[in-house]
Amino acid sequence: MEKFAIGIDIGGTNTVLGLVDGAGRVAARRAFATADYPRFGDYPAYAARLAGAVGELLGCVPGGARTEGIGIGAPNADGRTGRIVQPVNMWRFAPDEADPDPQRRSFPLCAELERRFPGLRIRMTNDANAAAWGEMIYGAARGMSDFIAVTLGTGVGAGIVCDGRVVEGRGGMAGELGHVTVDPAGRPCGCGRRGCLEAYASASGLCRTLEELMARETTPSPLRAIAGGRIEALTVARAAEAGDPLALEAFAATARTLGRALADAAVLLSPEAIVLSGGVARSGELLLAPLRRSFEEALMPSRRGTVRLLASALAAGDAAVLGASALVRCDRSAGA
Amino acid sequence: MEKFAIGIDIGGTNTVLGLVDGAGRVAARRAFATADYPRFGDYPAYAARLAGAVGELLGCVPGGARTEGIGIGAPNADGRTGRIVQPVNMWRFAPDEADPDPQRRSFPLCAELERRFPGLRIRMTNDANAAAWGEMIYGAARGMSDFIAVTLGTGVGAGIVCDGRVVEGRGGMAGELGHVTVDPAGRPCGCGRRGCLEAYASASGLCRTLEELMARETTPSPLRAIAGGRIEALTVARAAEAGDPLALEAFAATARTLGRALADAAVLLSPEAIVLSGGVARSGELLLAPLRRSFEEALMPSRRGTVRLLASALAAGDAAVLGASALVRCDRSAGA
Repeated sequence: MEKFAIGIDIGGTNTVLGLVDGAGRVAARRAFATADYPRFGDYPAYAARLAGAVGELLGCVPGGARTEGIGIGAPNADGRTGRIVQPVNMWRFAPDEADPDPQRRSFPLCAELERRFPGLRIRMTNDANAAAWGEMIYGAARGMSDFIAVTLGTGVGAGIVCDGRVVEGRGGMAGELGHVTVDPAGRPCGCGRRGCLEAYASASGLCRTLEELMARETTPSPLRAIAGGRIEALTVARAAEAGDPLALEAFAATARTLGRALADAAVLLSPEAIVLSGGVARSGELLLAPLRRSFEEALMPSRRGTVRLLASALAAGDAAVLGASALVRCDRSAGA
Repeated sequence: MEKFAIGIDIGGTNTVLGLVDGAGRVAARRAFATADYPRFGDYPAYAARLAGAVGELLGCVPGGARTEGIGIGAPNADGRTGRIVQPVNMWRFAPDEADPDPQRRSFPLCAELERRFPGLRIRMTNDANAAAWGEMIYGAARGMSDFIAVTLGTGVGAGIVCDGRVVEGRGGMAGELGHVTVDPAGRPCGCGRRGCLEAYASASGLCRTLEELMARETTPSPLRAIAGGRIEALTVARAAEAGDPLALEAFAATARTLGRALADAAVLLSPEAIVLSGGVARSGELLLAPLRRSFEEALMPSRRGTVRLLASALAAGDAAVLGASALVRCDRSAGA
């Protein structure tokens, strides 16, 4: 009997749902703008919209097939409680932003879906952990029991897998790789500190590096024609592919900073591999080639050559949904 | 029926064995110099001496009591294979130092003891992980499922516990906190790189910091009377306790460097607590007070106040043996 699972990726901008078959193919999709619900306290409306989309996907399951459950990946999701805790980048969700207690500013989305879809297995974890499950069940980390899945996108996060289990940590908060310090006196970060990795290795961090280079160097570049603050990571990647020296140097600088942070994580956790996904990683060898060099250089000599740096093997658009759906495919997932 | 366990702490200098009762009391001890066997290839002699000491301790078990097993903590121990892999600081063990394959330069100590003591449960992990087991079963981390046990001694290491399990990593090599980079252009480290935490937060790192301060500052101090390279960490601690400004600044500088590294580990793993043991940590609040400040400052704001920094609750001399013996007291230990 064919077995399906529903994966839900809740992002600050969009909520994407996929009906995933046993081979990791997305058989049907739904998506809606998370930000359509901008009013504080509008969580009930959001939950109803989400449940409606789940219902539509359940209607797409072929006769004779079974649906195993629903997996949810979301920023600040706590897999142990099944709640989404007030996320910095998703403030629109907050029912009462003035409440200082994060538990009261959290949403029991697992319980909500369990109530609406009795009999289905409901699992939740944060988006970075979901990406790790996706790589382990369907992607570049198949068969591995120790690896780190790193997402380089709007933010920088990590899902850490040790001995075949995703590390949740206290409050489901493990894996905040984006907020390790790479330069104590460095760039301001959205978290309120300075010098976090996220301020360098995220999509906007790459662009800030390019802007700094343009300010410091005199090298001509078509990128200079773009208004300040309007440059996007994809534009930098395309310029680098075309050989633009400033764009290439922006990738090299990003790789140097990221390589050191990944080496520290690797020394601490001794993974078999680090799998990279997200917008900045989609540039492929543009990032990976210099990254491998700086990573190896920053590793203690006895570890060199023991940790593989891999690009995600999941289709970019499907990775988050596949990861979320993979949650219900492993007994050891968060909440199991 | 009372249950005993034997803990073995294999260090570069001494091998210490303890017969431990169910309450974590050491009922009998044996110790001998690891370095009595300096000749390459003399592993059989070492193993025989070790087995002899185990036999003596088994002879101390009261009538009617049962011995559950033998736990071993050693540098570079691989809990998954039960072998000690050629350790940098214990080269005297090497049967053939020229052999580039670390597996051929490793010692199957678990199999050796299983052969000599059939029926006993034999478990092994690296020394830092053993310290973590000790804190979890008998010490400051009782009842915790997510914590990091950090040892600040001759070297700097960590045992990482996630969801009640010690993280082994590939080859049992997780937890090398001493080799995260705190200053890429910093002090040379025994591992062959520069700027590793161990070069700053180990006992000799603390002394090097003091020597740098003495070279740079003109502050008078009785420590200046000690010949260069002869200062010991304990001497620095006593001077700091007596109010010596240079010694106090050496602790403050160590705390600043260590605080940043611990904050990065905490952001990655989200532990409930970090438990500190080893010579440098035995200075207590001398280190812990400035360490708490630098740690909190280096944490991303949303994590501040959520991670406790604790001193080990195990008697200094017994910690390693208790930790090793704790290995056989938990079904989820390495090798289980």
